[in-house]
Amino acid sequence: MPDSIQLAEYLFTRLRQLGIDAVHGVPGDFNLTLLDYVEPAGLQWVGNANELNAGYAADGYARIKGIGALITTFGVGELSAINAIAGAYAERAAVVHIVGTPDRPTQDARTLVHHTFNDGEFGRFAQMAAHVTVAQVDLKDPRTSPEHIDHALTQCLLHSRPVYIQVPVDMVSVPVSAERLQSEIRIPPTQPSAYSNEVIDKVLGKIYEAKQPVVLVDGEARAFGIVELVQRLVEVTGWPSWTTGFGWGLLDETLPNVYGIYRGRFDAPAVHTFVQESDLVLCFGPHFSTTNSYVKTSAPKVDAAIYIAHNEVRIGDRIFRDIPARFAAAQILEKLDSSKTTTYTPSTDLSRPRVNKYSEALKDEAITQASFWPMVSKVVQTGDIILGETGSAGHGCRDIPLPKHVRTFVPVTWLSIGYMLGAAQGAALAQRELIASSQYHGIQSARTILFIGDGSFQMTVQELGTIIRHDLNVTVILINNDGYTIERVIHGLKQGYNDVASWRYLQAPGFFGAKDDTFTAKVKTLGELQDLLNTEAFTKAEGFKMVEVIMDREDVPEGPLSWLLAKQLGKN
Amino acid sequence: MPDSIQLAEYLFTRLRQLGIDAVHGVPGDFNLTLLDYVEPAGLQWVGNANELNAGYAADGYARIKGIGALITTFGVGELSAINAIAGAYAERAAVVHIVGTPDRPTQDARTLVHHTFNDGEFGRFAQMAAHVTVAQVDLKDPRTSPEHIDHALTQCLLHSRPVYIQVPVDMVSVPVSAERLQSEIRIPPTQPSAYSNEVIDKVLGKIYEAKQPVVLVDGEARAFGIVELVQRLVEVTGWPSWTTGFGWGLLDETLPNVYGIYRGRFDAPAVHTFVQESDLVLCFGPHFSTTNSYVKTSAPKVDAAIYIAHNEVRIGDRIFRDIPARFAAAQILEKLDSSKTTTYTPSTDLSRPRVNKYSEALKDEAITQASFWPMVSKVVQTGDIILGETGSAGHGCRDIPLPKHVRTFVPVTWLSIGYMLGAAQGAALAQRELIASSQYHGIQSARTILFIGDGSFQMTVQELGTIIRHDLNVTVILINNDGYTIERVIHGLKQGYNDVASWRYLQAPGFFGAKDDTFTAKVKTLGELQDLLNTEAFTKAEGFKMVEVIMDREDVPEGPLSWLLAKQLGKN
Repeated sequence: MPDSIQLAEYLFTRLRQLGIDAVHGVPGDFNLTLLDYVEPAGLQWVGNANELNAGYAADGYARIKGIGALITTFGVGELSAINAIAGAYAERAAVVHIVGTPDRPTQDARTLVHHTFNDGEFGRFAQMAAHVTVAQVDLKDPRTSPEHIDHALTQCLLHSRPVYIQVPVDMVSVPVSAERLQSEIRIPPTQPSAYSNEVIDKVLGKIYEAKQPVVLVDGEARAFGIVELVQRLVEVTGWPSWTTGFGWGLLDETLPNVYGIYRGRFDAPAVHTFVQESDLVLCFGPHFSTTNSYVKTSAPKVDAAIYIAHNEVRIGDRIFRDIPARFAAAQILEKLDSSKTTTYTPSTDLSRPRVNKYSEALKDEAITQASFWPMVSKVVQTGDIILGETGSAGHGCRDIPLPKHVRTFVPVTWLSIGYMLGAAQGAALAQRELIASSQYHGIQSARTILFIGDGSFQMTVQELGTIIRHDLNVTVILINNDGYTIERVIHGLKQGYNDVASWRYLQAPGFFGAKDDTFTAKVKTLGELQDLLNTEAFTKAEGFKMVEVIMDREDVPEGPLSWLLAKQLGKN
Repeated sequence: MPDSIQLAEYLFTRLRQLGIDAVHGVPGDFNLTLLDYVEPAGLQWVGNANELNAGYAADGYARIKGIGALITTFGVGELSAINAIAGAYAERAAVVHIVGTPDRPTQDARTLVHHTFNDGEFGRFAQMAAHVTVAQVDLKDPRTSPEHIDHALTQCLLHSRPVYIQVPVDMVSVPVSAERLQSEIRIPPTQPSAYSNEVIDKVLGKIYEAKQPVVLVDGEARAFGIVELVQRLVEVTGWPSWTTGFGWGLLDETLPNVYGIYRGRFDAPAVHTFVQESDLVLCFGPHFSTTNSYVKTSAPKVDAAIYIAHNEVRIGDRIFRDIPARFAAAQILEKLDSSKTTTYTPSTDLSRPRVNKYSEALKDEAITQASFWPMVSKVVQTGDIILGETGSAGHGCRDIPLPKHVRTFVPVTWLSIGYMLGAAQGAALAQRELIASSQYHGIQSARTILFIGDGSFQMTVQELGTIIRHDLNVTVILINNDGYTIERVIHGLKQGYNDVASWRYLQAPGFFGAKDDTFTAKVKTLGELQDLLNTEAFTKAEGFKMVEVIMDREDVPEGPLSWLLAKQLGKN
């Protein structure tokens, strides 16, 4: 390694070291010279249709590979992406947002250039970014830039949240010291202490006392890198285990003691009662927003709860700080004496009945949410990624039983509709990279399946062009229910403002440049759906495909959405 | 008028009083009850495909009608729109951004709801908005809400910049006093003073002294409501007059002394010399960003300049504050003694030669930027609106000679690509409303013509669906030059990062739901272009139409872009 390196090379070397193989984003006049360094650094340039979508894609990529990056230009580009960055902040996706900015002389002279407010102020966008990122650095000095980059990237890993790096045009190629590149960036280790040992012992004490313990895995478990530890704990204990929606797919659901998503009071009464009566809910990576906790009803009772959270352990209502999740989970697993834990068979059947009621006699029936999900489940194969967009898709898809190594994206907290289409692009690319580098559980072929409603699809539709351009294995299953059904069930069931423009959805692949033989299909009846599911051109993983499924505008899956609908209709 | 009115009614009554007839935006769970009041208030609900586009559309609408509005939801919606709001701030479009927020109990209890960071903080989005708006109000108290609304709207008018109004769900229908509605909102009047009289006299003195005076009208003249006053001054004096790009279309170019856009050193040498040698450049609504001033070369010399700016008059390098543009312009016009001003005929021909060199012999030639603009000019008719997207379109279209009452949108300062498509929707709707209410110079029929490159088109393409859904008279002329040509000429002429996905552009109307007989055409040769321009289905104003024009990826109009290209090729 040379002593000196150009700044852009330093930055991109760091990204490569962290496992990033592709960078999302959009070219703009203040980032073009920076982009010259992307491919020489061994990074693929994705080139999205717009910056919001690039941000969504980088987020989707980050959730699959651990970290992602996007490059935008000053002002216009970065602000277009800021909603995606905010979502990554809310739901802990490690996204490095790199922004090309005007050169230092221009900024210092307060020159009235484009992409500004024509007032000589260049600092406002960084101030806006500070609300949605865990580090902001402006690389204006070659002497400190390597350290600033490393600081930002460490924060990104530590919090699994976005960071913001500004690169003035005239800094791109300046020489900086390469010395720090000798050591890779990692999360600072935790030193065991008397205090932390005591807390872990308390947790173990609760574990040994428990008569009816359960495990609940939430989505922040992924962000803190404890998924494998938790999976082993679930295997070792054999305890009944669930995930939240956010955590869905992080546990191997093919195990007999893993029951998928726990839905609080929207679950089967026997399940809800069982969890609520448990004397210990060992919860990893908690993220109990109302939307991720079935209106708080899936959150454990305080006196039974132990939370392994970002940098703290909570036992009941007591908070023990400065104990990182990874440290806590590793210590619990390491110190656990299996001979002292209860092994029990639940008295009730906790498994989720999933009945595909389809029969030939029903072939002319319209497709409903109730019939659709059990039928469509069979398309999901080992290693696939499922995305269910906020709305009926994001709730309905939770009825799909997961094969091994299936990762999922469902509405958690940010709920920005349109997100899932961009995220599908990023997730599919990450999936392909992992398969290509033999880091995907030995799986050779898999696909990314996006379930999305028509209203959401319209938000970010142009990213189909990116999916097609990069020939990603994405299957889009568009639920055309004629507008924003989720908004209808919240309020304004019959109101015109919940309508959307009428598009000819299946023309999308052709319009966005797909090959002429791209698979498309439109299904309205159960028979048509059944035929589709038996069509090899649809069921094989390879290539881009699109299916339009017609459903009624007031039909929603059983659960929170049907409860909202009943409430609006005065039936609750 | 009743004594008491519901808050949403108050707000929408105010919008109506200000001349807003349609509200842009996207429904979301925290604004749905607010939307119940839109149509009953006599406002049309547009319903955009996404919030960024809604913001662009509201901005386009505002620039035509004076003020516009959009409604988004908390967090996800408002942040998606924030780049559009920033653009409206930079270029002074009066946009009222109304955001539906969680109810007050939820906020007060710091409940971990969706569209937040799951941390109980509800104030961050308003802090972000503060950077790009001139007033922020959160309507949390019925006693003060009417005053807060009025304050925000007054600021919006005064600065012609966006304002931000948060409406918690539980505030929508609370009763508030209707008393203030008795008087309409207006910009506070200016009181003449000894000081202001003296400044106006100084300006008049300069005017009377001038031997070779000229007028230069910039785009902020529209924002300050002085367009008609300036037009009269140009007529009364007969002085040679120009606009900037931002001001283009604000003066009647069919007058013999109005010469279109002054292009500084990119103009004909005779024109540039003439303006630079003028001893008085009376400049209204200055906005001299580098991109709006031909790299500062169209800005007047300091010792010849008088600027009538937002709230100040500048004579040379002296600034006289607290003299609003409207007051100054009105006073100048009122006090002007025409017998004391010079009347002169410029010694050089200042008119712009615009030669359409097309002849039958050239019919098989490829279309170039140089040949295209003189040919396409003839489609523009009285009352049309032209939008030229940032890039070759936004520069090339400046060669079109403008019939009367043609308004234009070209790149000014914010330069967010994709803006023009959203703005076209808003502008076309505003245009239709003005025609329908007989406020459009007696014009009965007109259209909005969008010239846009392929890269920009991809950014915001879904708003074609809105244009089609509302049956707006928009003609899209897509310049397909295979990527971001403007970026190529800045840097990376042959770099892959300046490529975009290959779409089948003319399938757009069909995909987005246009009628089967919608006019589309693809032209590659000058002969095909000539035929198109003689096709009645294309030249009539009514309906949505789309044309794809194929041009070379390294071809740019003469001017700043060709200069950049030559610079990159080492030819400057």
